[in-house]
Amino acid sequence: MIYWDNNATTPLAPEVLESMLPYLREQYFNPSAAYAEAKAVRRALGAAREQVAALLGVEPDEIIFTSGATEATNSALRAAQRCLCPAIEHPATLRSLGAESRAVIAPVTPEGEIDAEAWARLLPGCDAASLAWVNHETGVIQAVGSLARAAAQAGVRVHVDLVQAAGKIPLALHEHPISFASLSAHKFHGPKGVGALYVRRGTPWKPLLLGGGQEDYRRAGTENVAGIIGMGRAAELARDACRDRSALEALRTRFLTTLRAAGIEPVLNGGGASARLPQVLNLRIPGISAESLSLLLEAQGVLCAAGSACTSAEPEPSHVLRAMGIPDAAIRESLRLSFNRYSSAEEIDRGADIFIRCIRKIRSVQSSRTGPVTVYR
Amino acid sequence: MIYWDNNATTPLAPEVLESMLPYLREQYFNPSAAYAEAKAVRRALGAAREQVAALLGVEPDEIIFTSGATEATNSALRAAQRCLCPAIEHPATLRSLGAESRAVIAPVTPEGEIDAEAWARLLPGCDAASLAWVNHETGVIQAVGSLARAAAQAGVRVHVDLVQAAGKIPLALHEHPISFASLSAHKFHGPKGVGALYVRRGTPWKPLLLGGGQEDYRRAGTENVAGIIGMGRAAELARDACRDRSALEALRTRFLTTLRAAGIEPVLNGGGASARLPQVLNLRIPGISAESLSLLLEAQGVLCAAGSACTSAEPEPSHVLRAMGIPDAAIRESLRLSFNRYSSAEEIDRGADIFIRCIRKIRSVQSSRTGPVTVYR
Repeated sequence: MIYWDNNATTPLAPEVLESMLPYLREQYFNPSAAYAEAKAVRRALGAAREQVAALLGVEPDEIIFTSGATEATNSALRAAQRCLCPAIEHPATLRSLGAESRAVIAPVTPEGEIDAEAWARLLPGCDAASLAWVNHETGVIQAVGSLARAAAQAGVRVHVDLVQAAGKIPLALHEHPISFASLSAHKFHGPKGVGALYVRRGTPWKPLLLGGGQEDYRRAGTENVAGIIGMGRAAELARDACRDRSALEALRTRFLTTLRAAGIEPVLNGGGASARLPQVLNLRIPGISAESLSLLLEAQGVLCAAGSACTSAEPEPSHVLRAMGIPDAAIRESLRLSFNRYSSAEEIDRGADIFIRCIRKIRSVQSSRTGPVTVYR
Repeated sequence: MIYWDNNATTPLAPEVLESMLPYLREQYFNPSAAYAEAKAVRRALGAAREQVAALLGVEPDEIIFTSGATEATNSALRAAQRCLCPAIEHPATLRSLGAESRAVIAPVTPEGEIDAEAWARLLPGCDAASLAWVNHETGVIQAVGSLARAAAQAGVRVHVDLVQAAGKIPLALHEHPISFASLSAHKFHGPKGVGALYVRRGTPWKPLLLGGGQEDYRRAGTENVAGIIGMGRAAELARDACRDRSALEALRTRFLTTLRAAGIEPVLNGGGASARLPQVLNLRIPGISAESLSLLLEAQGVLCAAGSACTSAEPEPSHVLRAMGIPDAAIRESLRLSFNRYSSAEEIDRGADIFIRCIRKIRSVQSSRTGPVTVYR
């Protein structure tokens, strides 16, 4: 199997599982209890907090562990009255703002980059702005520094969705006027069901979940101890890994070169953006339906996404690609391949070979003029 | 070590960890994805939902997985304008209602039972009522059936906190007019960081976390897959185990009998209640400070709680015992021992022996009149 759907979720790194197991076995104590065994668990949570803070370039006391980025995003944006938000954001942002009701939607360019002029124009009258550093479908990296500065100058508090950025590009949140940030462990080889909210020191903010005094009264509920420990270890591993993107860039080039050598010219959605994650390819092969291609790929053991995986249960064409002005017919040809840091040249070659064969298969059926290609499951 | 703090959290059952491991290793797929591997994960989540539903005696589509009972409780009570709530509830209930502002506090008897007459009298004017089936500090079992019926007759929707009841007493929620219920897996040998909210079919209710379409649009966020699978397995194991309480009752009797044979007469807080969990003993030995005793016990490897473990970081005397009219001096003598279904007669004997020796040690120091006993950590 070749797993090229890492933007949906990533396999747990073996070191992460190793770090979690003691807390799923003998170290089961409630970190709020008074005895020494519980204090040791509490200390381990503190170490994980340091690891996550180091990944983001912030202080440990600015990190609040949550059940994931969705909770963190809902929590960060809860108090916003009018929140500027690009049209390409994840549903966790758009839906938590109630789509139109609290959101002011900012347009993006045809390459999926936030339109900086429109952004600056729409800021006045907003009390919050939310943007993803890296888009979940295209891998386009936004100019967060200048966009956050513009917001700060307009007196608007900024939340950054780090879900697809954390552990993939170096981050130094303290260098930017960012008040909140959200992330999920399972997107960087950590466990599902755990994430974090960054709240910059001094930022007015009220907790979403009330009850016990966990997380310094900022997020009640017995801690997901093993999950948090795993997230910390995953953050540590990712911090080392994300410094050098050249290996992943070489893999992307290798994949595209192989396709082109076989006479296949993929169109890259967001391919003209000034910065993109090398491990994400949102591409279309004109004339080839993404549904057919992804089903054939799956049959050959290559897993990828037609549309965002978080919403693959939803039959609507991607709202991200629509916001980029891509016609629905082209969206139906668009496929997202997302590699990870463990991807190898051998895997890329094997996957590219299957990819080429699947496209040729579809084309041969098409040229036999027996009708549209439908693959049944 | 003798772990007698199972009301704080329980060790993971070995079968539960076994059930989780495949989902922490090869079955890492995002259950929302379209390929067969992801569908298999989705099916496993469905099976876990059936297991949890069976534990509660409800339908699977009435179960929404959450990050724990705190999230579930916050979510259930969010829309309440005036919520009747006993004074002995967990902070997840009291604080999420903002203590006084949305809560109407119902008194309890000196035995820690909800005062049924006061309950009925206070219902009019409330739109919600919330009560724990089993109290977290005393183990007192409330007469939920009649209290819920009284609420229903007054047109008041009922939320039941099942945290200390689930997996310990047989539950059949459909037999009662209960609209919402909350539970956490880690209290019945499941993992921390996962729980569930029961919403009875047809109950008007709005989700707390918005975003992706997970949990049928009732709780957004990538599922804590391994946690949910573990919770399902834990529910299945607990359902079998909680049918027979006689073994735990025998252990409780054995413990108290051993103490009494050694000339120690513990006072049981809530001991006169008409129903209590056999595995929970909230007791005091007149003249013996709970702090000193718990520290000596810890030094001998017996772990228990002075006050609720969720709030042991808080130095205030227990609000539960206060609401029962127990004077602060007696509260400072109160200790909570909570066994679990794996506790054995051998463990009880060993623990009772240590318990007796610790009390004798404190008494011998006290009778030597060298001043108050202070144990330093």
